[in-house]
Amino acid sequence: MIYGGVEAGGTKWVCATGTGPEDVQALVTFPTTDPGETIGRAADFFASNGTLAAIGLGSFGPIDVKRSSPTWGRITTTPKPGWADTDVVAALTDALDLPLAFDTDVNAAALGEHRWGAGAGLDTFCYITVGTGIGGGVMANGKLLHGLIHPEFGHMRIPHDRAADPFDGVCPYHGDCYEGLASGDAIRRRWGKPPEELAGDERVWELEADYVALGLMNVICTISPQRIVIGGGVMNQPSLLPLVRRRVTALAAGYFGAAEIVDGVDDYIVAPALGDRAGVLGAFELARLAVDGML
Amino acid sequence: MIYGGVEAGGTKWVCATGTGPEDVQALVTFPTTDPGETIGRAADFFASNGTLAAIGLGSFGPIDVKRSSPTWGRITTTPKPGWADTDVVAALTDALDLPLAFDTDVNAAALGEHRWGAGAGLDTFCYITVGTGIGGGVMANGKLLHGLIHPEFGHMRIPHDRAADPFDGVCPYHGDCYEGLASGDAIRRRWGKPPEELAGDERVWELEADYVALGLMNVICTISPQRIVIGGGVMNQPSLLPLVRRRVTALAAGYFGAAEIVDGVDDYIVAPALGDRAGVLGAFELARLAVDGML
Repeated sequence: MIYGGVEAGGTKWVCATGTGPEDVQALVTFPTTDPGETIGRAADFFASNGTLAAIGLGSFGPIDVKRSSPTWGRITTTPKPGWADTDVVAALTDALDLPLAFDTDVNAAALGEHRWGAGAGLDTFCYITVGTGIGGGVMANGKLLHGLIHPEFGHMRIPHDRAADPFDGVCPYHGDCYEGLASGDAIRRRWGKPPEELAGDERVWELEADYVALGLMNVICTISPQRIVIGGGVMNQPSLLPLVRRRVTALAAGYFGAAEIVDGVDDYIVAPALGDRAGVLGAFELARLAVDGML
Repeated sequence: MIYGGVEAGGTKWVCATGTGPEDVQALVTFPTTDPGETIGRAADFFASNGTLAAIGLGSFGPIDVKRSSPTWGRITTTPKPGWADTDVVAALTDALDLPLAFDTDVNAAALGEHRWGAGAGLDTFCYITVGTGIGGGVMANGKLLHGLIHPEFGHMRIPHDRAADPFDGVCPYHGDCYEGLASGDAIRRRWGKPPEELAGDERVWELEADYVALGLMNVICTISPQRIVIGGGVMNQPSLLPLVRRRVTALAAGYFGAAEIVDGVDDYIVAPALGDRAGVLGAFELARLAVDGML
């Protein structure tokens, strides 16, 4: 059985067909424009790439993943212009007439890493992306976590020392929440340049590591993950992950009595084994679980 | 079958025998002194109160709940004098020769509320206590959450506006973490009086509600609970829970698209249905699950 997968991000969509990391049969990436055009391109791609058993869709959020809800399948309160209340599942299902499994982009990525990557064998771990925005997916007790809606790591509140960093933050809802202070968009607006043009500026990455680590500390205190997988475009700065690990260990301050957070932190906070394909590959797995009646 | 339950808190221990809220056959409460004396009093209570099938022990933490660990059954890095590295399970088992199930006090309370209280029918929710310290228990996807160790809500980092509140916080590990700013101990040291003597002072409770709500917002962003059950001695101040609810709704700022956090907040953030017996009753349930091989 061949599956379709969509990583529907706020910046770009990745669509693929296949069965896993060693068997990606077709893949396309295109920018996220308006809903009609973007969903249309995805539908065209799947219509012209063979017979599929189902499609998994991992979407930027917040989304409604509650099957019993009248608004199931929608992107809900996103600040992204034109996308609030988009019924992305209905639009794709109408175009393709295929079973469709729907979750957040980061829950899909967590599922991909669980099946084929850094989450293999773990029952409680997180996948976090620091890109244009910040999002987090969670597997808890062996299943993706939804609860009331789904995790929204990007909107945690973290300490913000305005004397050291007077920047107000970029979140249109919360100002200086986690995403408001530490996303790629926050970096670009704080320093006046995109992250990739700031590679040589240590101040940028020290501050970024401080913020990223504060959010991870809160994830550790709430979810107690067995591992944290952290990806996204901002993490492509090579100095950042080692700085984040060091800051998390310092913030823990020996409290948790877990060697993983101290001596083993290089193995505790890790890059995605599937790289930037975790989301779209996880969407295959989402589709497979739907076909097998396991969702 | 009659069970024994212990809520082993940092301030007091509650020991009981019975089968549930309607059938508490004996109950005793005593202050937490040194480990030998405290555990001895618990052992004496159970030895003289009939034949028990098993004992459930919900303990203050951090504790080692990993069955495969050589230090399973211990209280680990607690700052409480004399209690670090106490093997509380071994001490009780040696004295009583009964099966013993071990978890955090707040996970036990979550279990109690799940069986008989405000968590009934939910598969993902939190129990949080704001008392001398702050702790959180989590049921995620229908099971108590442990992960790497177990949730430690009290040590999240939250915004701290030192201009408005110059108090440094009381956590010996982290200073102004959640517990450092918002626990009963923090209130007592910030204002120079215990919480119960500050009932009429609005400033105290406005600030407290701000901090409590910031932590709950981070719990919502990470765990996405279907409900938050909040207890503990500090919450006995009657004005506090309504203030906390209002602040959480304000902090969410309409982002989550979940009516529960806005219109339904009175039913979303609630006091424990079992009151201050959630922990000890949950310990009965912990014992029952152990006997039934369900842990």
